[in-house]
Amino acid sequence: MEKVNVGQRILSANEQYAIKNSQLLIKQRKLCWNLISSPGSGKTTILARTITDLNAEIKMGVIEGDIQTEIDAERIRATNAPAIQINTEGACHLSAAQVHKALEQLPLDSLDIVFIENVGNLVCPTAFELGENGKIVVLSVAEGDDKPVKYPGIFAKSKVLLINKVDLLSANVVDFDLDRVRADARRLNKSIEIFPISARTGEGMQAWYGWLRDQLAQPRL
Amino acid sequence: MEKVNVGQRILSANEQYAIKNSQLLIKQRKLCWNLISSPGSGKTTILARTITDLNAEIKMGVIEGDIQTEIDAERIRATNAPAIQINTEGACHLSAAQVHKALEQLPLDSLDIVFIENVGNLVCPTAFELGENGKIVVLSVAEGDDKPVKYPGIFAKSKVLLINKVDLLSANVVDFDLDRVRADARRLNKSIEIFPISARTGEGMQAWYGWLRDQLAQPRL
Repeated sequence: MEKVNVGQRILSANEQYAIKNSQLLIKQRKLCWNLISSPGSGKTTILARTITDLNAEIKMGVIEGDIQTEIDAERIRATNAPAIQINTEGACHLSAAQVHKALEQLPLDSLDIVFIENVGNLVCPTAFELGENGKIVVLSVAEGDDKPVKYPGIFAKSKVLLINKVDLLSANVVDFDLDRVRADARRLNKSIEIFPISARTGEGMQAWYGWLRDQLAQPRL
Repeated sequence: MEKVNVGQRILSANEQYAIKNSQLLIKQRKLCWNLISSPGSGKTTILARTITDLNAEIKMGVIEGDIQTEIDAERIRATNAPAIQINTEGACHLSAAQVHKALEQLPLDSLDIVFIENVGNLVCPTAFELGENGKIVVLSVAEGDDKPVKYPGIFAKSKVLLINKVDLLSANVVDFDLDRVRADARRLNKSIEIFPISARTGEGMQAWYGWLRDQLAQPRL
């Protein structure tokens, strides 16, 4: 019984900060997307290309979560976008309290969208709300087409599935059934938006940009 | 303070089971390797090919850890090797107690090596000893060459690094500096053995098989 209670206390502290973050973002009229994936699926490359391609049109900032190193924040700063690095020092996910501190350091006034790049992990980040408008799960075709079935939680909870590295499909070097992934993801989550992209070659990125624009254009509270 | 104590109690229960597992394996003179990686790096494909290629020579069984589904155990059973599936129901790593139960279900008498395929996760499984002889970290070249620096824990703790999907390097479809990964991994872990392989094409697998043979041939307690 004691263990259960401790668990509930931790979750509820996270929830309190998630609510604070959500209130801050609504008040400032910013959208916030929480990117979740395995290590190496291409989250940072997707963000760097998105920021560069939409530079003249949408202002974006990034909160980078990593076990350690500033590598990802530096890659984002190279695009001239502001990036705050959080090092979790071993923890497998970002907490809402960490994101709260980072939101206070970002120049929110000058931004339209805040991206959170979570720690590379398909499991742990799923359970921690950060106050974001939605989760975006990234799956690289190199990871295999059985991932929605094997890690259903994040596919069930995400607004968008970005299927990255689709340039490997035309090179015929991986076994990956795009239709199977689409069907399995939609079985878990009827309304999930799915965009096959390659952040390396640019293939499919326009559809993803269109979705980002649509979200900004929608009436908000 | 209370949180710290609870944490210590959980770790120590895991440690107790890890010691039990280790004693059982030593008594039965079996070697046990714990495979850890991100989702989709190719752990199951490596195991299936290893079991098939060494079928006449070394008898292997597998303990499969997954959040849910029996997909991986079924892929192993298709090679005629025994496989026990553990579903962690959301947990991001295997515990030594779960492995203990699975060891009791495997036909240990007829095996030389027990492989544990941990839950796809580069972070959490690192912290939980299972009583294995060593950890084997798998990194696919599609995941990028910055992973040892960004997720140092598992590279520091592993006996072997399998760099999988190297067939993608010759296809020239990923940016991955093999020498950088070798140098970064050895900086974290001077004695780590590194084998670049492709479980898909078979490239490099003989060196890995040689290492498995050497370990079986070494004098044991």
